Amino acid sequence: MDVTVLGSGSAFPGPLRGASALALRLQQGEIWLFDCGEGTQTQLMKSSLRAGKITKIFISHLHGDHVYGLPGLLCTLSLNCNAPPGQQGQCVEIFGPVGLRLYLRVALRVCSSELLFPFTVHELEPTGDQSPPTGLLDPTLTACCPQLHPQERPGRTLRPDPESDCYSLLEDERIVVKAFRLFHRVPSFGFSVQERERPGRLRVELLKQLGLKPGPVFGRLKMGESVTLEDGRVLGPVEVLEPAVRGRKVCVLGDCSGLVGDGGRRACKGADLLVHEATLEDGMQEKAAERGHSTPSMAVAVAQDCSAHTLLLTHFSQRYKPAGGPGEGRDDVLELKRQAELALRGTDTCVVLAEDFLTLPVPLQKHREPQNPA
Amino acid sequence: MDVTVLGSGSAFPGPLRGASALALRLQQGEIWLFDCGEGTQTQLMKSSLRAGKITKIFISHLHGDHVYGLPGLLCTLSLNCNAPPGQQGQCVEIFGPVGLRLYLRVALRVCSSELLFPFTVHELEPTGDQSPPTGLLDPTLTACCPQLHPQERPGRTLRPDPESDCYSLLEDERIVVKAFRLFHRVPSFGFSVQERERPGRLRVELLKQLGLKPGPVFGRLKMGESVTLEDGRVLGPVEVLEPAVRGRKVCVLGDCSGLVGDGGRRACKGADLLVHEATLEDGMQEKAAERGHSTPSMAVAVAQDCSAHTLLLTHFSQRYKPAGGPGEGRDDVLELKRQAELALRGTDTCVVLAEDFLTLPVPLQKHREPQNPA
Repeated sequence: MDVTVLGSGSAFPGPLRGASALALRLQQGEIWLFDCGEGTQTQLMKSSLRAGKITKIFISHLHGDHVYGLPGLLCTLSLNCNAPPGQQGQCVEIFGPVGLRLYLRVALRVCSSELLFPFTVHELEPTGDQSPPTGLLDPTLTACCPQLHPQERPGRTLRPDPESDCYSLLEDERIVVKAFRLFHRVPSFGFSVQERERPGRLRVELLKQLGLKPGPVFGRLKMGESVTLEDGRVLGPVEVLEPAVRGRKVCVLGDCSGLVGDGGRRACKGADLLVHEATLEDGMQEKAAERGHSTPSMAVAVAQDCSAHTLLLTHFSQRYKPAGGPGEGRDDVLELKRQAELALRGTDTCVVLAEDFLTLPVPLQKHREPQNPA
Repeated sequence: MDVTVLGSGSAFPGPLRGASALALRLQQGEIWLFDCGEGTQTQLMKSSLRAGKITKIFISHLHGDHVYGLPGLLCTLSLNCNAPPGQQGQCVEIFGPVGLRLYLRVALRVCSSELLFPFTVHELEPTGDQSPPTGLLDPTLTACCPQLHPQERPGRTLRPDPESDCYSLLEDERIVVKAFRLFHRVPSFGFSVQERERPGRLRVELLKQLGLKPGPVFGRLKMGESVTLEDGRVLGPVEVLEPAVRGRKVCVLGDCSGLVGDGGRRACKGADLLVHEATLEDGMQEKAAERGHSTPSMAVAVAQDCSAHTLLLTHFSQRYKPAGGPGEGRDDVLELKRQAELALRGTDTCVVLAEDFLTLPVPLQKHREPQNPA
């Protein structure tokens, strides 16, 4: 499992920083994309990732620098779709705020973009407190939504669960994905991808010492059952299994000046990796908040609240040139890192600065337990 | 006057060739953009052009690789808009096929893209013979067009003039712009930008020799009037003016496998520069035509028909790597140039291959008259 930054810049795709996009590669090689600013498909081509492995796309909010690359990406995925002739490629699932379906449908249909695979758009319905009133979509706009694209399968409309204050996006035997609410100029969301805990490996050598031979009993023990041996002894999973492998958790937050409600704090608790924006430096906190954005210290506060292991800062104003690059100067992005490190002093959380094409592994951490908030 | 290629690739914006876009810089520094594939704004930033100088945008057809960069470009133009506080920037005029208004309106409104300048979309209504029936836009799609964007000014719907078989786009004291019909998988258009003829300079030395002094008489002569001198002699413009300066003509064709009707031939007659696609090599003509595209020889046929001075080939399949670049190989783009040169042998037309960021001047040619077709 690793994440690759495809665009670390805010506002527009610049020559030094692409517009927002981040790829999460799962163990099976499958890729989940978070945001898709203009130029993301070209960034993918420049990276070592295979765009054809993208199966799910999560859009945090409907600002152009996070979504204007989506129609073109789907077209190019289709050009490279290697489904056998006469067959369809795999369905691509897309999650994002209400309005995304209209945007995508019109962009693809007006441009006669035929796709060789089906897709579906699941829309998250924001609550009224995720933006100023000016950020709410005009209901007459979404009311005029045209017919489905020929390859579009009807999607769900998702609302937050009152109990957890989270949106339940996906849940299977491997993974649970939730969305939670953020505050921005338009409604914004964060996503948490939580691997399920995996049972520890069977202590085969111990079992052999106890005189057991590989067979159905091994299978039952592996599944966590207790087993009564011929001599009456009872063997339980605690004795014969190595410690369970804690599932990893990766959380990717869209643009925000803060969380809304309690969903984000819960969903991100103990995150191995928390991706948070830091558009402007601490000295510009007022300006940042006014625009619905964060500074390094604001990002650190969220990371500490969730006891995140690693904080990946991204979405930098294009004024901050990449470190070591041709445009490096006084406004260097490293200052943002120093501010985050200062705010994190005395904690276990470490901070990493996003750069385009940076790949960050998310290693398995068998014994790590969620920390208590500082 | 010069043109700069911002994207010379077909189908998608690749790392070596951007998606379709071409900038025409007029004498006053104003820039007119032809097509705006995804990533055009980033290509502009990498070029020496100032995006803020763009006043008009022409979209040849509604395929994503020609238009998916437009909403993002407008947003970035707005970010860099240097209109005085409280005032509006200059209105950007956009021309393109029916459907463009819906696409742009939805893309900008769904993404809450506020612009600091007004814009207007003038739509060209295609005729039914510009594409196979599958290329025609579903009328239920455009019927559901939402309200105008707050900065949008109502645009015109343009139809071809039965006489000239051209669409009249713009006409002022400097320039006449027309569109004409092309055949492609979806309706496509070409554009001709024709400078008006400028009167020659006044032969001031000659006038002084005739005993005249600078004053109102000079002005009248300059405007082409005849003037009766005190001694009864009549001076006409032919005697006192240098030869008129022929206006330049630049023609930019969208994707096509041919012209439709007679408009294109007329509008492009005697073009100083004809920009034509050559997606595939001559050996793949059948495949090219099947996809509504051209080969070098097909482009040459159009250039010869119009007696164009220079033929700029562009919109190359991404299989053709830029000459001299890292990906250069057997499929080198220079083969396309050789094929065009072979087809042009014995004519005066010269051929140039587009590469991203190539700038081609369009010099004044005082005495050149339109050639007769070979």
